[in-house]
Amino acid sequence: MTKAQLFDQIKQKKSYLCVGLDTDIQKIPQHLLVEKDPIFEFNRQIIDATHQFAVAYKPNIAFYEAMGAKGWESLQKTMEYIPKECFTIADAKRGDIGNTSGLYARAFFDKNSSGLDFDSVTVAPYMGADSVTPFLDFPNKWVILLALTSNGGSKDFQNLRLEDNKQLFEEVIRKSQEWATDEQLMYVVGATKADMLTHIRTLAPEHFLLVPGVGAQGGSLEEVSKYGMNSHCGLLVNSSRGIIYASTDKDFAKVAGEEAQKVQVEMEKYLNLYLS
Amino acid sequence: MTKAQLFDQIKQKKSYLCVGLDTDIQKIPQHLLVEKDPIFEFNRQIIDATHQFAVAYKPNIAFYEAMGAKGWESLQKTMEYIPKECFTIADAKRGDIGNTSGLYARAFFDKNSSGLDFDSVTVAPYMGADSVTPFLDFPNKWVILLALTSNGGSKDFQNLRLEDNKQLFEEVIRKSQEWATDEQLMYVVGATKADMLTHIRTLAPEHFLLVPGVGAQGGSLEEVSKYGMNSHCGLLVNSSRGIIYASTDKDFAKVAGEEAQKVQVEMEKYLNLYLS
Repeated sequence: MTKAQLFDQIKQKKSYLCVGLDTDIQKIPQHLLVEKDPIFEFNRQIIDATHQFAVAYKPNIAFYEAMGAKGWESLQKTMEYIPKECFTIADAKRGDIGNTSGLYARAFFDKNSSGLDFDSVTVAPYMGADSVTPFLDFPNKWVILLALTSNGGSKDFQNLRLEDNKQLFEEVIRKSQEWATDEQLMYVVGATKADMLTHIRTLAPEHFLLVPGVGAQGGSLEEVSKYGMNSHCGLLVNSSRGIIYASTDKDFAKVAGEEAQKVQVEMEKYLNLYLS
Repeated sequence: MTKAQLFDQIKQKKSYLCVGLDTDIQKIPQHLLVEKDPIFEFNRQIIDATHQFAVAYKPNIAFYEAMGAKGWESLQKTMEYIPKECFTIADAKRGDIGNTSGLYARAFFDKNSSGLDFDSVTVAPYMGADSVTPFLDFPNKWVILLALTSNGGSKDFQNLRLEDNKQLFEEVIRKSQEWATDEQLMYVVGATKADMLTHIRTLAPEHFLLVPGVGAQGGSLEEVSKYGMNSHCGLLVNSSRGIIYASTDKDFAKVAGEEAQKVQVEMEKYLNLYLS
């Protein structure tokens, strides 16, 4: 998917919501466990209930890998079920030396090889240029590079000061722009504070940012939208648990849809207010 | 596997060789393609031919994921086939926020969940403490943390100077020792130069180091052994292509065994010379 197509979707659905399909067999409603593939059945119903309100879906690959080969089958069925207009993110946080990152690219982008055909994959920057560039050989596919994550451990290395007084995550954002343009590169930015978002927008004014940590993790959607939005929206805001586990009863899909709609309504307001 | 058990294996086999099972359907001998599971058949024959000379096996997970669910089945069969005395490394370079790293731990360490039961997994440090510690909840399982990798892009971030003049990879080695002891933590160190290995041994004198980049990638086994070995060996030296693709003909397994034996004979010499 191109950047223009993604922005079109955002304008059409009046939403920049990404639904995180962090589907855990230990957390889904009990009544689904009789199904042949409970993980896929859960995802199917969540997608049915939310796709009007979401422009993107982001399965975190760990949840599927934890179930081995069976998990990959559930993931593949889920990918085939997601409506084609939605942007898909393999939240895999991969990264390896060049030829091996090429194989991860085949795993997530090459349907003939792996059965999967995501639009994008999250990548960890530690191994540098050649761990990122093999993904960019696939036209209209995206790397979403970890820059500033929202977990407690992010401060251990990402906020380290370099000799020029920059923080490591700032150098990740700067350096990676030598490898790709904003037509193939986004950043994971777990920032929900105004000053930090404003600062990141000076480093990457045109890039899409994937923002986790809104909703269950407590960030403010208004702050993110006010300080992070650019002229083509430039935001995908993820919510996982806040939507998919809003109810763990038989009505889980209906409640998930209602939660997604609430977020979409709020996003529509911010698009009207802050789209520059 | 405990550190003492691993050292016992090394003494018994007089080897610290790790064979990298980077098995690519596009590179294995053509005659195997008629097999039901060519990847597993290749691995089975490689393991048969090399296990006397190797203490560890390291499948790079990218090669299996590139084939989707089928690849995971090949991986699972391979894991079941590796002799129990061998140390197994899931070269996955994972890393995610706490609860999600816990799921990756289930994927690689919990046979009941995923079908896989590795002794260790490689982890990328960028997300910090809580991306690493969930793996340590599994007793006698190991994290092998990326410190200094052997690819070209490693210099982009790993060699950055911090404000205290340390390089980033040095801080990764220092900080991570707050999270685990050398009974559960190893480092990936793609260094083959004497001065660098000597320096790393001042930062992590007791830890095992997993050293790639010897063999096909051109590092010197003697330098690594002379400057990297400690009183319990403390080295696992990996060779992938140099062994498994030494021949791509029908005799591939026999030739792989011969190559592994050559490395073992050299390692036996260095164990006699440098084990302190």
